[in-house]
Amino acid sequence: MIAYEALQARFAALKSNKLFETFVIVVIVFSALVIGASTYDFQPGVLEVFAVLDIAVTLFFLAEIIVRMLAEGSLRRFFSQGWNVFDFVIVVASLIPVEESQMALLGRLLRIFRVLRLVSLIPELRVLLNAFVSAIPRMGYVSLLMFIIFYVYAAVGSIVFHPINETLWGNISIAMLTLFRVATFEDWTDVMYETMAVYPLSWIYYLTFIFIVAFIFLNMMIGIVLETLQKEHERMDQVTGEGEAGEVRWLREHTEIMEQRLERIEMLLRRQTRDEPRQPPATDG
Amino acid sequence: MIAYEALQARFAALKSNKLFETFVIVVIVFSALVIGASTYDFQPGVLEVFAVLDIAVTLFFLAEIIVRMLAEGSLRRFFSQGWNVFDFVIVVASLIPVEESQMALLGRLLRIFRVLRLVSLIPELRVLLNAFVSAIPRMGYVSLLMFIIFYVYAAVGSIVFHPINETLWGNISIAMLTLFRVATFEDWTDVMYETMAVYPLSWIYYLTFIFIVAFIFLNMMIGIVLETLQKEHERMDQVTGEGEAGEVRWLREHTEIMEQRLERIEMLLRRQTRDEPRQPPATDG
Amino acid sequence: MIAYEALQARFAALKSNKLFETFVIVVIVFSALVIGASTYDFQPGVLEVFAVLDIAVTLFFLAEIIVRMLAEGSLRRFFSQGWNVFDFVIVVASLIPVEESQMALLGRLLRIFRVLRLVSLIPELRVLLNAFVSAIPRMGYVSLLMFIIFYVYAAVGSIVFHPINETLWGNISIAMLTLFRVATFEDWTDVMYETMAVYPLSWIYYLTFIFIVAFIFLNMMIGIVLETLQKEHERMDQVTGEGEAGEVRWLREHTEIMEQRLERIEMLLRRQTRDEPRQPPATDG
Amino acid sequence: MIAYEALQARFAALKSNKLFETFVIVVIVFSALVIGASTYDFQPGVLEVFAVLDIAVTLFFLAEIIVRMLAEGSLRRFFSQGWNVFDFVIVVASLIPVEESQMALLGRLLRIFRVLRLVSLIPELRVLLNAFVSAIPRMGYVSLLMFIIFYVYAAVGSIVFHPINETLWGNISIAMLTLFRVATFEDWTDVMYETMAVYPLSWIYYLTFIFIVAFIFLNMMIGIVLETLQKEHERMDQVTGEGEAGEVRWLREHTEIMEQRLERIEMLLRRQTRDEPRQPPATDG
Repeated sequence: MIAYEALQARFAALKSNKLFETFVIVVIVFSALVIGASTYDFQPGVLEVFAVLDIAVTLFFLAEIIVRMLAEGSLRRFFSQGWNVFDFVIVVASLIPVEESQMALLGRLLRIFRVLRLVSLIPELRVLLNAFVSAIPRMGYVSLLMFIIFYVYAAVGSIVFHPINETLWGNISIAMLTLFRVATFEDWTDVMYETMAVYPLSWIYYLTFIFIVAFIFLNMMIGIVLETLQKEHERMDQVTGEGEAGEVRWLREHTEIMEQRLERIEMLLRRQTRDEPRQPPATDG
Repeated sequence: MIAYEALQARFAALKSNKLFETFVIVVIVFSALVIGASTYDFQPGVLEVFAVLDIAVTLFFLAEIIVRMLAEGSLRRFFSQGWNVFDFVIVVASLIPVEESQMALLGRLLRIFRVLRLVSLIPELRVLLNAFVSAIPRMGYVSLLMFIIFYVYAAVGSIVFHPINETLWGNISIAMLTLFRVATFEDWTDVMYETMAVYPLSWIYYLTFIFIVAFIFLNMMIGIVLETLQKEHERMDQVTGEGEAGEVRWLREHTEIMEQRLERIEMLLRRQTRDEPRQPPATDG
Repeated sequence: MIAYEALQARFAALKSNKLFETFVIVVIVFSALVIGASTYDFQPGVLEVFAVLDIAVTLFFLAEIIVRMLAEGSLRRFFSQGWNVFDFVIVVASLIPVEESQMALLGRLLRIFRVLRLVSLIPELRVLLNAFVSAIPRMGYVSLLMFIIFYVYAAVGSIVFHPINETLWGNISIAMLTLFRVATFEDWTDVMYETMAVYPLSWIYYLTFIFIVAFIFLNMMIGIVLETLQKEHERMDQVTGEGEAGEVRWLREHTEIMEQRLERIEMLLRRQTRDEPRQPPATDG
Repeated sequence: MIAYEALQARFAALKSNKLFETFVIVVIVFSALVIGASTYDFQPGVLEVFAVLDIAVTLFFLAEIIVRMLAEGSLRRFFSQGWNVFDFVIVVASLIPVEESQMALLGRLLRIFRVLRLVSLIPELRVLLNAFVSAIPRMGYVSLLMFIIFYVYAAVGSIVFHPINETLWGNISIAMLTLFRVATFEDWTDVMYETMAVYPLSWIYYLTFIFIVAFIFLNMMIGIVLETLQKEHERMDQVTGEGEAGEVRWLREHTEIMEQRLERIEMLLRRQTRDEPRQPPATDG
């Protein structure tokens, strides 16, 4: 039992070792390069080297994840972090022995996702990715509106233009893909001219779609920029608020104290002069 | 009469019932899915099911709009709201029994617009749409300028390039569509190379057009961003204005009161010391 | 002489008459519609009507410009305004009787520019156009840098890729047009794949070009946005400056007055108490 | 030795001479025009003139760089500036006598880069270029993330779509180029439709890629805008800080002095009135 705890402490030390982290990054980059290189056509001999390297990388990742599991102490704590689950799935998936060609493809694909482990290891990339993920919900309703627009136009398109071109307007899913193509301006006039040959006024359909989508997209972008600017402002206001706004508050408090003091002084003076006959009628403001 | 009023109260309660609203949204989404599914090629049996479902949805919408009409009390009040008119038109239009193929198409198209009822039901989407509609006029003059630019270029294009390509430059409307295509950069060089074969300097026409349109568009975008930023600023200024600007105003008012009090104090003191011969000449600032 | 002056006053009144201005705008819009309509294929009879209408519009513009000239009093004052010169050129140019087909085309083209008179007549459009014109110089150096980049890349392209495709890289002007096409992403891969067949590394040429141009363009846009924002800020600061900053200045001035008064009060009091023996040693801060 | 120093002073005077600088710019522009003109097809006689002009320009640049070297005094100081090194390399490279056709091409290419000397000579362009260069590192991590996304998608694409189209997905480098093409929306649907014929769900691959890349690009742009805005704000805050914030600080200091004075005044008054029996109990706040 004591031996196990000593081992765990050692693994925790290893895990948080700067050199070990750098080595893991190097291995990931190396494995990424091997994956990239394997897409080129090489002599069979080179491919065998790649296969051996791939097994070595897989074993290293297996060892690394076991070290991290043991370092964490309990499995529950290990799996409570999303990136750990992700790493575990990647490592286990690349362990599956694949023989048939279809499964071999899957195995190679899964091994590519190892490159994404760079994101989980480099803190700056992690921050960026978290920012991206946290930005998704705030565009919720605009995305929903965009989807409704696409859906309505795709429904109209797939019903009306269906007989003209089955490949572009066959059903509502294909029509939505075609509309996305129109939204990216990719050969959209070819799509339009084809339907205009049957319905000469169908340019209205395309132009209104382009204007509405461009407008909503613009709104989306401005919304994101504004939100980011606002957060920035709030952050800066907190900083400057301790500066100027704080001084103004100080001024207010001390002005109040001065006023009370002046009131007392006036009272004292009035009491002194009350005895004298030349006192004017009180003119309190 | 009392029975009618009781019924109306009941309908009003039903209309503003959260559960009822959710159910209406579910039916709209369901009807949207049925519309989407009907664009796929299915067995005749499935299509019959769709037809039955469509009738059921139509009847439900009819019932729902009658409930809302009765809940409102008077028809005038019901029709005074734009979205109610929209809903009514959609429901009535989908009631028209259509037999011929041409009219059947129209019926199907009208039923698609039911999906837009989602926008009228979900408040957040309503807010977004109102923002879009209210943004249209503020771009009025820039749009007018853009239109004049398009019109002038289209007139020149349709007169000069007319003999080169009838399909692209046949008349001013077609030329405007072609120019819109050029503005989206969609195969615009094909259009240009064709006219450059006859008029080698016609690239000036396209490049000036692209620069002018890009410039006005950029101006438009910046205008919208600025206007949105300004509104945001005003809103924030009102909030912070109650903070700092309010405190500065408070300081000003109380400084004025302090000044008056000090004036009175000095006067009192001067009167006391006036009797004494050591008084210096008054030096009021 | 008196009759002439009376006439001039009358013309000046007519020129600034709101109704007359509106009528001129209506005639311009009408002439624009005639120009647009004349690009369609009509029966010879309709075309004759257009010709008559065109003469009528030309005569009206002639009369209008004479009225404005006479209203101005001196020709020098009339021609000192840029828009007047523009109007005069347009009117005189459309007076030239054109018989041959080539000149007839020119005449029709010149008449199109009448539509631009809308911009000179509607004040809001005039403001927009002035803003556009005033924005050109501020982009001067960025445009120069952009031009140098295009020039260098075009020189390289026309020298190296010249033998591959004469139409795209024939000389430096054609190469610059091709590069503008690449910058708009219009079928740029077709251009690239063609040269990559000879020089496999030529993708570096295109990618660096796209990145540099995109980067400078982005910088340009941000520059314009920032400059517009800054102007807006300055304008708003002037407004709010009269608010808060003004109040702070008021506070400062009145605090100074209060300080002087307090100094006098303290002096008075000290003089009163100086006679008394219990006076403590002076502790001025 | 004295003669050398006198010469050096003379060269330094020449180098910083405004007229000389302008003349150098004129020669550069002239040499740029010669380079541009030489890409057109001319008579052999004209080409010979160009060759002579080219030699003249080369000799002038050689003379100019020697003047600048001598003016600087020591070679080490001359080469410590990046732009000097750049100029030296350009001048030396264009001196190499080239006979064979391949080298002649290189010579012509190197001479084009002379145009870039405009950037080193015009201070405003130098500032712009420095801004561009200094902006590169701040996009470091976003670019890295972008590269990882491209790499992962390219690896997946080159493995899965490899058998479909060797030209587009042959290996990971080609696949990255294809993905860049998709990111610029250049005929991306042609790429997609081809793979969708084999894998009908491959549109997910393209759409997720487009959304992720667009999102990161948007983030990049906003980041640059925000950073530029922030710098601008800091600059303006320094200016206005000396205005309002400075006045508020002045107010605070003087309020403190006034408070101390008031305290002394109250003390003096209390001492005066202490003798009197009507004094109330002290109520310091």
